[in-house]
Amino acid sequence: MSDSQHPTVPGFKFAATACGIKANGQLDLGLILADEPVSTAAVFTRNRVKAAPVQLSQQRVERGRAQAIVVNSGNANACTGRKGLQDVKVITSIIADELGVADDMVLMASTGVIGDPLPSEKIEEACPALVAAATPDQIDGFARSIMTTDRWPKVSSIKFPIGHDKEVTVLGIAKGAGMIHPDMATTLGFILTDAPMHSSFLKRALSTAVDRTFNQLTVDGCTSTNDCVFAMSSSKVDAEPLRGSDRDARRFIDALVDVLGELGKRIVQDGEGAQHVVELEVVGAPSEDAARKVGQAIASSLLVKAMVLGRDPNWGRILAAAGNAGVAFDPTKVEVKIGKVLVVKKGMRVGRDAEEDARRVMGDSHYRIAVKLGPGKAKSSYLFCDIGEDYLRLNAAYRS
Amino acid sequence: MSDSQHPTVPGFKFAATACGIKANGQLDLGLILADEPVSTAAVFTRNRVKAAPVQLSQQRVERGRAQAIVVNSGNANACTGRKGLQDVKVITSIIADELGVADDMVLMASTGVIGDPLPSEKIEEACPALVAAATPDQIDGFARSIMTTDRWPKVSSIKFPIGHDKEVTVLGIAKGAGMIHPDMATTLGFILTDAPMHSSFLKRALSTAVDRTFNQLTVDGCTSTNDCVFAMSSSKVDAEPLRGSDRDARRFIDALVDVLGELGKRIVQDGEGAQHVVELEVVGAPSEDAARKVGQAIASSLLVKAMVLGRDPNWGRILAAAGNAGVAFDPTKVEVKIGKVLVVKKGMRVGRDAEEDARRVMGDSHYRIAVKLGPGKAKSSYLFCDIGEDYLRLNAAYRS
Repeated sequence: MSDSQHPTVPGFKFAATACGIKANGQLDLGLILADEPVSTAAVFTRNRVKAAPVQLSQQRVERGRAQAIVVNSGNANACTGRKGLQDVKVITSIIADELGVADDMVLMASTGVIGDPLPSEKIEEACPALVAAATPDQIDGFARSIMTTDRWPKVSSIKFPIGHDKEVTVLGIAKGAGMIHPDMATTLGFILTDAPMHSSFLKRALSTAVDRTFNQLTVDGCTSTNDCVFAMSSSKVDAEPLRGSDRDARRFIDALVDVLGELGKRIVQDGEGAQHVVELEVVGAPSEDAARKVGQAIASSLLVKAMVLGRDPNWGRILAAAGNAGVAFDPTKVEVKIGKVLVVKKGMRVGRDAEEDARRVMGDSHYRIAVKLGPGKAKSSYLFCDIGEDYLRLNAAYRS
Repeated sequence: MSDSQHPTVPGFKFAATACGIKANGQLDLGLILADEPVSTAAVFTRNRVKAAPVQLSQQRVERGRAQAIVVNSGNANACTGRKGLQDVKVITSIIADELGVADDMVLMASTGVIGDPLPSEKIEEACPALVAAATPDQIDGFARSIMTTDRWPKVSSIKFPIGHDKEVTVLGIAKGAGMIHPDMATTLGFILTDAPMHSSFLKRALSTAVDRTFNQLTVDGCTSTNDCVFAMSSSKVDAEPLRGSDRDARRFIDALVDVLGELGKRIVQDGEGAQHVVELEVVGAPSEDAARKVGQAIASSLLVKAMVLGRDPNWGRILAAAGNAGVAFDPTKVEVKIGKVLVVKKGMRVGRDAEEDARRVMGDSHYRIAVKLGPGKAKSSYLFCDIGEDYLRLNAAYRS
């Protein structure tokens, strides 16, 4: 699970290069290459405004098989009209030709500024060498090539046994920083595994795991034009294909949740300018939907984020944000814990001493806030971060 | 309509004092006093978590008559349980005794930190002198006594003719700064008029005018624990009571819209740390609800606010925010104007020159952004401001 030692995944190669999209000469073009067309699934942004690569990949991944994903950073290729779509077709076609497969075996993702025309020629020129340079161990390079405002690359992996005596690997690579929620910069995620499965199982497993991880911090109807998470399985491990909900299938989904969950934490930690990551738990809600709505309202409140930044247990803002969620609850029953410190009981302050204890918890870079709404049984969790002055500086000047 | 010359309103007096809630000795207790019980109406926060004064005033205003509104700043008296409600009862009862009227003729509003116990004794002690000191011209003092993070007091008024030869006055006083939308500090508003009317008409007129003004910038389900707007009519002008939709009734509603609209602009301008106020127009929407949702999504997007702060026509963020509104539209039909400059046509960039022109518009402290979604006929407008580093500084340290 560490960044420093990325395990290779049998059946996959990676490549990265600086093709000139980013003015500063940093890596800006990456490639994931399978040895042959393999089981592939993906989930995409629900934003009405979808970038060109999202439009084409969403269409192509329906087949459940692909051999390559090319990713550029520095330009979102969103709101770029027919030319933008044409660019994606040309780029993926060049890679398909290099591989000798049909065009629709190649997918694409992009992240960067919206609305600038994609400098497609630069990418097209770089493609043949990119394909030729791919090796199984260039995982870190690929992870760096997809970064935008990220402060560090994000890789996570896990190995676990399946069948009688086999071991499989799940490798995840992601990019994303920004406020994440509610309005985030783009999140891209890539899952590679050698566990054997058909694309129908991979699709279901990915969607389940994303719901339990990334969707608790990003999506929920609040997505960028370019968000997507891809999963590919080389099925190189010689065992029964995973299916249904048997033991190995459950293990695989758990592994996906672990890997995506870890990547999600790193994305929130990398929130532009963030100093604190808060794990928010809403419990005692009348329904899961209610718990999610309250969690989202608290996690996206600017005043709550400023409170986290200021390390000030100004819990009234948490209650006020919860009261805005459009969910029925009795304010006189609410409890709030910051770390293990109870600061609100029966909807009222516990006392100054408790708040002083909570203030100390809020000095930590990572802590928990638990909100108990009432006697209900439903709960939800959210990851969020504070908003710092660096966020404003970065995002006010992002294109300059 | 100017701050410097506030017209008195026959039938009303005002008072203000510093009773010691604010540590810095500034005005923190204000009073509006009618000569007798008069027609009164109010609209209140829709937040589930309602401050004690909101709970009591909401109940009392049902009668349609009141004689006084006492307002404290520096403490919200929210999440303060039974003690908080009891405090409101005692304070309003002291004022009622001074006036010789029933307790329920006195209303209360509060604004400030949530969760701190109200220093009720300080207010109680100050009440008799406050009542005694009220005069018709202490409008500015009252406006200052209700301020929290406001940089200036907010007063607006209008006079207009009714009947054959009478003139009436509508005076509005408000407080509010903060981000307003989506998560705002408290907004309080007070309307006083001498136009003759029953409370049923006043109630309808207030609700209509608030929908067209404050609700385009604050409420929409996103409200603080303490928001309220009160209206009182002394009916001192000797004319037919306003009713229905006859000419004078329509003039009164228009006047309310003007006064509340002006106050709303000043509240947004006073957004904590705000450097720019943007009048957002969403047009060409399939329905008014769709237009409002898209407007709200754009106006509350942190990335859009950061764009406004940075004076950077990064219109992709506007489209991405619109795409998150949960409203169906065709992104390839969207147009965006910044000021009079068309920067997006058919969902795509117009060009660098247009963006340079738009950048100049964005240097203004007040400008317009128009988003045309498609061929629909519905529209909506929103006022919003940027979020500056001062906002974070203020709100991270608000209680310190």
